[in-house]
Amino acid sequence: MSIRASVVSMVLKHTIRKQMSTFEEPAALREQMSRSTGKPPADVTVKPVSVDGVPAEWLAAEGAAEDAALLYLHGGGYVFGGPDSHRDVAARLAKETKLRVLLIDYRLAPEHPFPAAVEDATTAYRFLLAEGYPPERLLLAGDSAGGGLAMALMVNLKDLELPLPRAAALISPWVDMTLLAESLLGNADKDVMLSPEAINRFATHYLKGQDPRSPLASPLHADLAGMPPVYVVVGSTEVLLSDSESLVAKLTEAGSDAELVVWPKMPHAFPVLSSLIPEGRQAIGNIGAFLAARL
Amino acid sequence: MSIRASVVSMVLKHTIRKQMSTFEEPAALREQMSRSTGKPPADVTVKPVSVDGVPAEWLAAEGAAEDAALLYLHGGGYVFGGPDSHRDVAARLAKETKLRVLLIDYRLAPEHPFPAAVEDATTAYRFLLAEGYPPERLLLAGDSAGGGLAMALMVNLKDLELPLPRAAALISPWVDMTLLAESLLGNADKDVMLSPEAINRFATHYLKGQDPRSPLASPLHADLAGMPPVYVVVGSTEVLLSDSESLVAKLTEAGSDAELVVWPKMPHAFPVLSSLIPEGRQAIGNIGAFLAARL
Repeated sequence: MSIRASVVSMVLKHTIRKQMSTFEEPAALREQMSRSTGKPPADVTVKPVSVDGVPAEWLAAEGAAEDAALLYLHGGGYVFGGPDSHRDVAARLAKETKLRVLLIDYRLAPEHPFPAAVEDATTAYRFLLAEGYPPERLLLAGDSAGGGLAMALMVNLKDLELPLPRAAALISPWVDMTLLAESLLGNADKDVMLSPEAINRFATHYLKGQDPRSPLASPLHADLAGMPPVYVVVGSTEVLLSDSESLVAKLTEAGSDAELVVWPKMPHAFPVLSSLIPEGRQAIGNIGAFLAARL
Repeated sequence: MSIRASVVSMVLKHTIRKQMSTFEEPAALREQMSRSTGKPPADVTVKPVSVDGVPAEWLAAEGAAEDAALLYLHGGGYVFGGPDSHRDVAARLAKETKLRVLLIDYRLAPEHPFPAAVEDATTAYRFLLAEGYPPERLLLAGDSAGGGLAMALMVNLKDLELPLPRAAALISPWVDMTLLAESLLGNADKDVMLSPEAINRFATHYLKGQDPRSPLASPLHADLAGMPPVYVVVGSTEVLLSDSESLVAKLTEAGSDAELVVWPKMPHAFPVLSSLIPEGRQAIGNIGAFLAARL
């Protein structure tokens, strides 16, 4: 573990972790997190776009392929986050993959509970199909709630009999809202960013009384037959570790080509913090390699 | 552990446990559970009564005191249960304590989510005060969700500046809806009646999107200063064991006279199953002794 990563972990533990565990209203959390991941690299162009009503941005590095795209779904417990907080990770993926990256600003809870986020992600994917991208040239990526949303999107696409993307890369995905994951308490004292209490708050806001076992809210509980290759990266001390482990086990059991990479002691969704944590940049490189190899 | 208790535990594990873990609609569960606890003892009279709109029953043994009463709040995850399922335990307490027992049929979720049950319990308690029972001659008891409801009622009475009852006896109380109790997963494989999945379902129905940390839904998270003496009895292998342990710790810390009795390996709310389990009858005797000593 790099010294940078240790320092960042310590800072997270004494700032963000408490804020996420105790927030009552999302406003302050949204404001705080919109400033937290640094500036995107200068050599990526950012172009705002409305995707059938969903605000979004196209990010592209010099020489990006024209016939392929990566849809990125940001994290934030379905309660905060957006292009400001995740432009950096999306830009890094744009550079790494030489793909156009569509970063969408889906609706957030509690104002827009489940299934608003799934609907917006589906709208964005339909837009990409309508734009003429062949599904075998479409990729998905997402972190945390956005990783769960990427899985939920694929389950929804299957239900709607729409073509699935070629592959997906998930960073510390949150795929189980039952609050019964083993690591939720098992890693409660070790996770430097998330806590069981935070997960509880996020789930309450997102579900607003709906069933925590709904397959599109908790895709771990969906029928996962027919999923494309999925790459999952997670930290060993995360409260969401079990989500990644169980997801990859279930995908494998269902016949998918799923891969799990557990980074020792890395904080939650550390590739999103690549501007601060060197290991994050390395993980972005691995994700890019996995995705590029599928095209 | 008696042979009877072992046999009953095995039967529970292969019948009720699965039903509670997987039910989608409460109808079948309600029907099943209304038949499950046997007939009440013959030497207790049962008199239906409407308590300011809340259906209820008065149970009294020969020679019951006229100036004191015990309000009993039944369990069933706030989703099932009623006088039929809990007349036996209420009647046993009526005999044991020589007190009139008021067994109320509070409204159930999901048709009537939180705080309907707390409102009905409060209505019943106000009725007892209005009937002229002095609060120092009023006692509370309840099992499972009803044990949590008894605590919630006392917190609500404090908030409303109404006089609290003299004491309360709680059987395997469920006082925490965050689903973060340690025993929820720790005892998941040992509990013969309840499972984490069942608790999850009950909480979803009862809360219907409301905050799991609401003090009147999860009285473990309430300010517990000023509570009367509380006696708690629970089985060592219950998924709700932590609820009892944490509650008694918090009550003690808040200056109350709280007592925890953990019975090795007894099934959830075993005193409610006294017609089947001899240890339940012994526990009822202990509860009766605790309550009688407070009057």
